[in-house]
Amino acid sequence: MFEALFQTFEEPETGVALTARLSAFREELARRNLTGFVVPRADQQQNEYVPPSEERLAWLSGFTGSAGMAIVLATEAALFVDGRYTLQAGKQVDVKAWRIEPLVDPPPETWLAKHLSAGDRLGFDPWLHTTAAAERLAAACARAGAQLIAVDSNPLDTVWTERPAPPLAPVTLHGQQFSGEAESEKLKRIGLEIEKLGVDALVLSDSHAVAWTFNIRGGDVSHTPLPLSYALVPKSGRPTLFIDHRKLSNSVRDHLERTAEVAEPAMLTPRLTELAKGGASIALDIATAADAFSRLIMAAGGKPVRGSDPVSLLKAVKNPTEIAGASAAHRRDAVALTRFLAWLDREAPAGALTEIDAVEALETFRRDTGALKDISFPTISGTGANGAIVHYRVTRKSNRRIAPGDLLLVDSGAQYEDGTTDVTRTIAIGEPTAEMGDRFTRVLRGHIAIARALFPDGTTGAQIDTLARQYLWQGGVDFEHGTGHGVGSYLSVHEGPARISKLGTTPLKRGMILSNEPGYYKTDAFGIRIENLVLVVGADVHGAEKPVNTFETLTLAPIDRRLIDLNMLSGDELSWINEYHERVRLAVRPHVDEATKLWLDAATAPLSL
Amino acid sequence: MFEALFQTFEEPETGVALTARLSAFREELARRNLTGFVVPRADQQQNEYVPPSEERLAWLSGFTGSAGMAIVLATEAALFVDGRYTLQAGKQVDVKAWRIEPLVDPPPETWLAKHLSAGDRLGFDPWLHTTAAAERLAAACARAGAQLIAVDSNPLDTVWTERPAPPLAPVTLHGQQFSGEAESEKLKRIGLEIEKLGVDALVLSDSHAVAWTFNIRGGDVSHTPLPLSYALVPKSGRPTLFIDHRKLSNSVRDHLERTAEVAEPAMLTPRLTELAKGGASIALDIATAADAFSRLIMAAGGKPVRGSDPVSLLKAVKNPTEIAGASAAHRRDAVALTRFLAWLDREAPAGALTEIDAVEALETFRRDTGALKDISFPTISGTGANGAIVHYRVTRKSNRRIAPGDLLLVDSGAQYEDGTTDVTRTIAIGEPTAEMGDRFTRVLRGHIAIARALFPDGTTGAQIDTLARQYLWQGGVDFEHGTGHGVGSYLSVHEGPARISKLGTTPLKRGMILSNEPGYYKTDAFGIRIENLVLVVGADVHGAEKPVNTFETLTLAPIDRRLIDLNMLSGDELSWINEYHERVRLAVRPHVDEATKLWLDAATAPLSL
Repeated sequence: MFEALFQTFEEPETGVALTARLSAFREELARRNLTGFVVPRADQQQNEYVPPSEERLAWLSGFTGSAGMAIVLATEAALFVDGRYTLQAGKQVDVKAWRIEPLVDPPPETWLAKHLSAGDRLGFDPWLHTTAAAERLAAACARAGAQLIAVDSNPLDTVWTERPAPPLAPVTLHGQQFSGEAESEKLKRIGLEIEKLGVDALVLSDSHAVAWTFNIRGGDVSHTPLPLSYALVPKSGRPTLFIDHRKLSNSVRDHLERTAEVAEPAMLTPRLTELAKGGASIALDIATAADAFSRLIMAAGGKPVRGSDPVSLLKAVKNPTEIAGASAAHRRDAVALTRFLAWLDREAPAGALTEIDAVEALETFRRDTGALKDISFPTISGTGANGAIVHYRVTRKSNRRIAPGDLLLVDSGAQYEDGTTDVTRTIAIGEPTAEMGDRFTRVLRGHIAIARALFPDGTTGAQIDTLARQYLWQGGVDFEHGTGHGVGSYLSVHEGPARISKLGTTPLKRGMILSNEPGYYKTDAFGIRIENLVLVVGADVHGAEKPVNTFETLTLAPIDRRLIDLNMLSGDELSWINEYHERVRLAVRPHVDEATKLWLDAATAPLSL
Repeated sequence: MFEALFQTFEEPETGVALTARLSAFREELARRNLTGFVVPRADQQQNEYVPPSEERLAWLSGFTGSAGMAIVLATEAALFVDGRYTLQAGKQVDVKAWRIEPLVDPPPETWLAKHLSAGDRLGFDPWLHTTAAAERLAAACARAGAQLIAVDSNPLDTVWTERPAPPLAPVTLHGQQFSGEAESEKLKRIGLEIEKLGVDALVLSDSHAVAWTFNIRGGDVSHTPLPLSYALVPKSGRPTLFIDHRKLSNSVRDHLERTAEVAEPAMLTPRLTELAKGGASIALDIATAADAFSRLIMAAGGKPVRGSDPVSLLKAVKNPTEIAGASAAHRRDAVALTRFLAWLDREAPAGALTEIDAVEALETFRRDTGALKDISFPTISGTGANGAIVHYRVTRKSNRRIAPGDLLLVDSGAQYEDGTTDVTRTIAIGEPTAEMGDRFTRVLRGHIAIARALFPDGTTGAQIDTLARQYLWQGGVDFEHGTGHGVGSYLSVHEGPARISKLGTTPLKRGMILSNEPGYYKTDAFGIRIENLVLVVGADVHGAEKPVNTFETLTLAPIDRRLIDLNMLSGDELSWINEYHERVRLAVRPHVDEATKLWLDAATAPLSL
C-alpha cells in the first residue's frame, strides 16, 4: 500500500559498540595537550536538524536525541540530556563509559566546576557554540582554576575517519508567487534595520534567514527545505552569499548574482577578517552565530555587536502572498487530514492498526495531494501511554497497537511549496472515559480561548499563554510545554522570534503564523493535544481605543466530538466549535469521495447543549 | 467636623523663585572641578517616600513628583520626569532655567550622551544611586568620552544651607502579637539564606527589611511606619543594626540588644570596610543598595555579590499571625469604608461635596475605628476627568465638585498596627451612562477573574495578569498599570518582590498579600478602578495533580451595583458578587448604626439576571 516514506522507524544503534571511538578521541585529546573536550549536539548554525556530517555527539556516544552535550575528560565522560531523553540516553550509550547527567537543572557547568582541577585545559570548538554558551563554559572553568581552550580544528573530526561529506542538495529558487517579495526589496528592508543598529555590516548566520532573504530553498537537512549557507550584508553595497557552488545550477547562480556576490563558504572567514581589520562593527545573531565569529572579528580589530538578528522578525511577519499560500496549503492539508481521520475511524475499531500504520497512512494521504515536498517533522503517533510522551517518535520497537479504549495522539505536518503545516488531533478509539472527556474538554476550551482571543497591538505571547491553561489549572492540572511556536513559510516548522509561552517576550504582529497547541499528558495512561496554526489578524472592535488583534485559524480538520463534554462548554465555545466545523466541512467536502463526505458530515455536524 | 488629617492638600511652591539655588549649585560644581552633576529623586535607600532632608531634587528644581532626576551642566539643566508628571513639572519648575525631558523613553542617558563633551567630568553621589543606575550613567559618559566621578560628599548639600535635619521618630517594637515571629527566628531563616548564597555577610540596605527582621517600626517617612536604618548580618555571629540612637528608648534598645549589636549609622562604613579587608564576599540588594557599598567593599578588597535581598521574599510571605492581623484590619477598615460609602450616597446627590470632602470624610471614618496609625498613602479622590489621572492627588487648586452624572474614584488605605489596607471603589453619582456601565463591568469581570483564579504552585504574577485584562481587551481597551502589587504587614503598601503584572516574575506563594486592581481610564472623562487586597491560599481541587493556589479576598466593601451591566455577566460571576456582598454584609452589619445598616442591606442585596 505504501511507497517509500519521508519518515523512518529504525531504532538507532546502541553505543556499546562505540567505546573504541571514545578511546581514540581521548588519545587525540592527549596528543593535543587537552584535559578534556566539549561535544555539543550542534552544527555551526545551531540548526534544529543537523546533517549527518555534523552528528558528532551521536557518532561518539550513540545518543541520537535532538538536544544534548557530552564532556569527555581523561577518566570521566558525561552525557548531558534533558528529562525527555534520560531513558533513551540510558539505552543508547554504554553506561559503563558514560554518566548520564541533567542538561538543564543543574547545567553541565555545575558538573564541570566539580570535575575540573586547577590547571586543566578544556577544549571546545568555537564554531559549535554561541558566545553566550562559550562564556558559561569559560566561567565554569575559571571557577575550577582551569582554562577553556578554543581549538582551531575539532579533534573529534580527526578521529572520525568515515565522517560523511557535507550535504549538497541542489538549491531551488523560491519564486515570487510563493515569497511575495523580491530579494532586492527584502535587502532594502534589511538595510534599514542595519542602519537602525548603527553597524557596518550584518552577518546572517542562520540559514533560515539566508533562505528567506535570497528566496532560495534546498534540502541539506531533514524536513526543512534549507540550503546550509551564510551571508554578509554590508550597510551599503552588495551582500555576499556564502554557499557551496556545487549546490547551484547555472541558472540559479545567475539569478542570485543579480543581487549578491556568491562565494564559497570558505571565503567567509577571510572576508569577515578583512572587514574587521578596518575596525568595523559587525552585527551577529545572539541565537545562532558561532562564538568563532566574535573571536575572529575581535582578533582582527573589529567590534562584534550581538543582538537578535533583525531578519528573524521580518521573516516572521508573512506578506499577503505568503498568507494566501499558507491558506491554500492548509486547505490542501485538510483534505489529507480528513481522509486520514475517516480511514482511522473505519479501520481502528478492528484493533489491528499500529502507531506506524497511522504514520504511513497519513503521509500517504498527504502524498496524494501531489504537492507534498516533505513532512515538516517526524509524525508523533502515540497511543495509550505513548501519547503521554510529549516528544514521542515511534520506532519498530516502541510501536504499539491502537486498542479500543485508548486515545491516539497524532501530531504531524507537511512542507508544501506554498506553506508549512503543523496539526495535532487526538482521537478516541472506542469509548473514552469520563476523565479523558474532562481533560480533553479543558484542553479544547483553552484552545478556543486562544483562537478567539482579542488583544491590543503590542501584546506578547507570554501575555496570552495563560488563556490556554486556565481551564486545566481549574482542574489542578497543566501541560509542561509552551502553547505555541512560530511557523515558517515553506521553512522551519519551528520559527522565532514570537511564541505563545511564558518566555514569549516578542509582541505578536499581524501576519505572524503561530501554533495553538495546549495539551494534557497523564503519565503511563494517555496524551491529549489539540493543535491548529493561527494567523495574527486585525480585529474590528466597536469603540476600540487602540488597534486590536485576534487570530484566524488556518488549520482545518475535525476535532473529535466524542471527546467533548458538552456540559463544560459555554455557549460561545459551542458556537466556535460549530462554526469551525462548518468551515472544515465547506473547505473539504468538494475534494473527497462519497464515503469520506458521509464521515465528514457526521464528524462536523453541529453540537448542541 | 474634621480634626487634623494625615493628608494635606497644599500646592507645592513653584520653582521660579529657586533659580538662585541653581546658580549657587553651579558655582559649587565649578569649585569642585565638575562639569555637571546628577540629582536623582532618591535617598540612600531608594525609598518610595523620602524624608524632607532627602528632597534634594525638590529643593533644587521645585519639582515634587515621586519620581524624577535632574542633570545640571554648566549651561544646561534638564529635569527628567515620566508621562504622569510632565504637566506638573512644567508648572513647578522655572522653564527658563530647566528643560523638561522624558525619564523613560528615551532615558536620561540618551540626553547625557548628546550633551556631554569629551573630557567632561560628570559628578554623582554614589549613595543616591544603585550600582545598575551608576553603570548606565558611566556607559553614557563613556560614549561621549566623558568621565563619571563619584563624589565623597554631595555638592548640593554644601549649598543647601537650611537643609532639614534627618527625621528622628521614636522606634517602637512590633510585638509578637502582630509579627508572629521573634527576631531570633527570623535571623535563623535569614542565616539559611546567607548560607544558600554562599557569602560571608548580607547587608540589609532596605529599611523595610530591617524593620521586618528586627520587629521594629518607626515614623521617619510619610505613610509607612519605617525607622530609617541599616543592618549587617554575618553568616555567623550577631548581626549589627545601624540606627540613630536618639530614636531608641532605653527599653527598645535593651530589647534589640538581646539579638543584635546596635550601632550608629556612621559605623556602617567602617564596619563594612573592616569586613571587606579580609576578602569577604558580601551580598547586596540589587534594588536598594547604594553604589557606594559596592565601591567601598571593592576598594577594601572584598567582593560585592549583587542579587535580590532574600529578606524581601521572606517578608512577603505572611505568617498566620500576620494573616489574622490583616483579616482583622480589613474587617475594621470595612466598617469605615461602609460608613463612608453610605455617607457619600446620602450627601453627594445634593451636588455640594468636593473631592477633598470625600478624603476628609473617609479619613475621619477611619479615625473613628480608634486604631488608625496613618493613612497608607495619600487618598486618590478623583471625580470626572480627575478620575482618569491614575496617580491623581487632589489639591485645593485641583479640587472638583462631585457632580451628578460623574463617577468618583476613591483609592485609599490605612495603616493599622495589625495590618495595612489598600482599597479602591468607583461610585456612580446619579445616573451613569451605558458606556460607564460597560467599562465598569469589564473591569469588574477582570477583577473577579483574578479573585477566582486557580493556578498551580509556582505560577508568577505575569502569568495571571492577563486574566484581569481579557474583557477590556475584548472591548478594545486596556489599562496602563499593573494589576496588583504586594502589600506589607504594617509596612509599605507597595512591597516586592511579587506583583501581578507582565513584569511579575516572582512565583506567587501562599501567604502573600497582593492588590487586585484592574481599571479603565477615559482621558478627560472618567476613571474606574476596583481594588481589593487578596491573600494567596491553597485550593482544594478534586483530582489535582499538583498543589493549586487561589486568592482569598481580604477587602470588604460594597461594589457599586448601579454600575454593573448584568447582561454582561456569567452565572459564576454573578454568584461571586452576591457571595462577596454577603460576606461584606455579615462582617459590617453588627458594627454600624441603623441608617447605615439599611444602606448596607440595599447595597449588598443579591443581584439576579
